[in-house]
Amino acid sequence: MKRTSMRLADGRELIYFNESDDVVRSRVDPRHLPDPSTSTQTRHDVLLDEWVAVASHRQDRTHLPPSDECPLCPSAPGRPTEVPAADYDVVVFENRFPSFAHGAGRCEVVCFTADHAASFAALPPERVRTVLEAWADRTAALAALPDVAQVFPFENRGREIGVTLSHPHGQVYAYPFVTPVTRRMLEVARAHLVTTGGNLFDEVLAAERAGPRVVARAAEWTAFVPAAARWPFEVHLYPHRAVPDLPALDEDQRAGFGPVYLDVLQRLDRLFGVPMPYVAGWYQAPVRSDRDLARLHLRVFSTRRDRDKLKYLAGSESAMGVFVNDVLPERAAELLRAAGP
Amino acid sequence: MKRTSMRLADGRELIYFNESDDVVRSRVDPRHLPDPSTSTQTRHDVLLDEWVAVASHRQDRTHLPPSDECPLCPSAPGRPTEVPAADYDVVVFENRFPSFAHGAGRCEVVCFTADHAASFAALPPERVRTVLEAWADRTAALAALPDVAQVFPFENRGREIGVTLSHPHGQVYAYPFVTPVTRRMLEVARAHLVTTGGNLFDEVLAAERAGPRVVARAAEWTAFVPAAARWPFEVHLYPHRAVPDLPALDEDQRAGFGPVYLDVLQRLDRLFGVPMPYVAGWYQAPVRSDRDLARLHLRVFSTRRDRDKLKYLAGSESAMGVFVNDVLPERAAELLRAAGP
Repeated sequence: MKRTSMRLADGRELIYFNESDDVVRSRVDPRHLPDPSTSTQTRHDVLLDEWVAVASHRQDRTHLPPSDECPLCPSAPGRPTEVPAADYDVVVFENRFPSFAHGAGRCEVVCFTADHAASFAALPPERVRTVLEAWADRTAALAALPDVAQVFPFENRGREIGVTLSHPHGQVYAYPFVTPVTRRMLEVARAHLVTTGGNLFDEVLAAERAGPRVVARAAEWTAFVPAAARWPFEVHLYPHRAVPDLPALDEDQRAGFGPVYLDVLQRLDRLFGVPMPYVAGWYQAPVRSDRDLARLHLRVFSTRRDRDKLKYLAGSESAMGVFVNDVLPERAAELLRAAGP
Repeated sequence: MKRTSMRLADGRELIYFNESDDVVRSRVDPRHLPDPSTSTQTRHDVLLDEWVAVASHRQDRTHLPPSDECPLCPSAPGRPTEVPAADYDVVVFENRFPSFAHGAGRCEVVCFTADHAASFAALPPERVRTVLEAWADRTAALAALPDVAQVFPFENRGREIGVTLSHPHGQVYAYPFVTPVTRRMLEVARAHLVTTGGNLFDEVLAAERAGPRVVARAAEWTAFVPAAARWPFEVHLYPHRAVPDLPALDEDQRAGFGPVYLDVLQRLDRLFGVPMPYVAGWYQAPVRSDRDLARLHLRVFSTRRDRDKLKYLAGSESAMGVFVNDVLPERAAELLRAAGP
C-alpha cells in the first residue's frame, strides 16, 4: 500500500491510500477556496460535565447534491471536487465543515471508493483491508496530536439517519476529550476489575461467543447481538485477541476483518430487502488513559425496526437515556443468521 | 378538580381528571380485552451498567390509525375506545403496550383533551393547569409504589420523531431504576456541592436568568436556551423557587406554569410556520434518593434545525454521546424571542 499526502487549496490535509505502489497522485488542487471556517466552539454542559460541539457554519453544508455535483467523487475536467485526482482507491481529507475547531480536535472524511453508486457492503475484501489500514493510520497520526484524547472512525449510512452525501464515505472524529460513553464504559470496567480482578470486556465476549446471539464467526473475530441491545438490529464485532485500538491489530486480525464485516453488513441489507440505514463505529481506547483496560471493538446498529418502520429516539431515550427496544435480541440474531448468502 | 378512578376491561387503571366537580364518569368499559402483555423485560447492559427495556410486543402497537379509529378519543355509540366516557377533560390510563413489565415500573398515557385535532400549544391555560395536576397526582401515586425509583412525565409530539398516535397525549414512565441521565446529573451536582458548597442547579438558573439566552419570563418561572444546548432548539423551564418534584410545587407556581409554557410552545410553532416536532419532559428528583439535591425543571427540544431540515442523531451522538449542534444557542434564543405573538 502506498500513502501519499498533500494539501488542498485552503491548507487542509489530504491523504491517498493506494492499493498499487505504482500509482502517482501528484495533481494539485486547482480551486480557490476561502479559509476553513473557524466558527466552531466546544461548550461545557456543567450539569452533566460533558462537552457539546456548536458548529453553526454546518447549517450551510452541502445537502444531498445531485450525483454530478458530488464533492467526494474524483475530479473531472472542468469539475474540480474535494479530491484533485481522476481516480482513487481510498482517500482521507480534513472536513471542510468540521464539528471541532482548529487546535481542539479534528474531523476527517474517509472515501471508501471512487464509485459514487457503491456501498461499503459491496466493496471487495481487499478494499476493506485498505480502509482498515487508513483507519489505523489516522488513529495513530491523530493520537499523536497534543489536543486529541480519543479517535473515533465511523460511518453513517442512509438518508433515514440524516446522511447528506450519498457517496460511500465515513468520518474520523478526533475528540479533544474522552467521550461520555467511553468514559462511562471505562469507569464501569475499572470498578469491575477492582472488585473481581476480571476484565469486563473479556467476560462479555466469552459469554457471547458461547451464547445464543452469535451472528457470524471467523478465526479472529466474532459478531454478536448484545444481550441488552438498544437498537432493533445491533451487532458488536470483537477481535478474539484483545487490543486497545486499530494500530495494535496484528496481520491475522487485519486479514480476517474484511470478510466477517462484509458478511454482517450484507446480512443487514438482506434482512428487509432494502439497504439498511446504519451507524457503524470503532470503540477504541483513549489516547492517553485506560489503555490497559479498554478493548477495541466495532458496533453497527440500524434504526430500521421493520420493513416500513424506523426506531426513533423519543422522550425516554433522548431525555433520560433509557432505551426501549422493540426487537428481542435473540430474535434479531436469529433473523440475521437466517439472512445468509 | 374531581378525580375519578376505574378499571378497564383488562384490569388496567384509568383516572379521569374533571375540571367540573359536577361531572360523573361512571360508564364501564364494554370491551372484551385479552390480558395485558407480559413479554416485557428489563435487561442490564453490563458494560455501561445501565438498563434497557425490551418490549417486543410493541412491534404490533397501533401505528398512525385514521382519526375515526383513534383509541384515545372518547367512546362513541358502537365504537368503544380506551376511554369509556363520551367526553373528558384530562384522562390517564395504563398503557396497553407498556415498555416495562408489571411489577417493575409502570407506563401510563395522559390524554390532554378529547379534541383529536388539538395540540398542547392550543390548550387554554386552565386545561394546562388540569394536566399539571394530573402529572403531580401521578408522580405522587407512582412514587408510592415499591418498584418505582423515578417518575418521568413527558410528551413526544410529531410524526418526525416517531409519534404513532396524533391525538394530543403524553406519557408517564415510572422507572424501576434511576435513569442514566438523572444519575449522572446528580453525581455531578453532588461533587459540586462537596467541592464548593453550592447547588449547581441554582447557580445555572441564576446565571441564565442574568444572561443572553432567556426566552420567556414570568413571576415564578424562567425559560432559557442552555449555554451548551444539544439540540437546535432547546428550552429549559425552571421554577424560581427550588422544589424536588411536581407534587412540591406551590399554588403560585402551579398557576404560573400554564401561561409561560404555552408561550414557549407557541413560539416554537411560530419559528418556521409549521408545527414543531418536539420532546418535552420533566426532570424530577428520584423517589428515594438525592431529594435535597435534585431540582425540578422541564426541558423541551426539537429536532427541526431549519424549515426543511431535521437534526438526526448519527455516529457521534448515538455511539459516543457527543452532540454536534448546528445552531448557536444565543441565536436560537434570539429567534425564539422574535417569534412572539
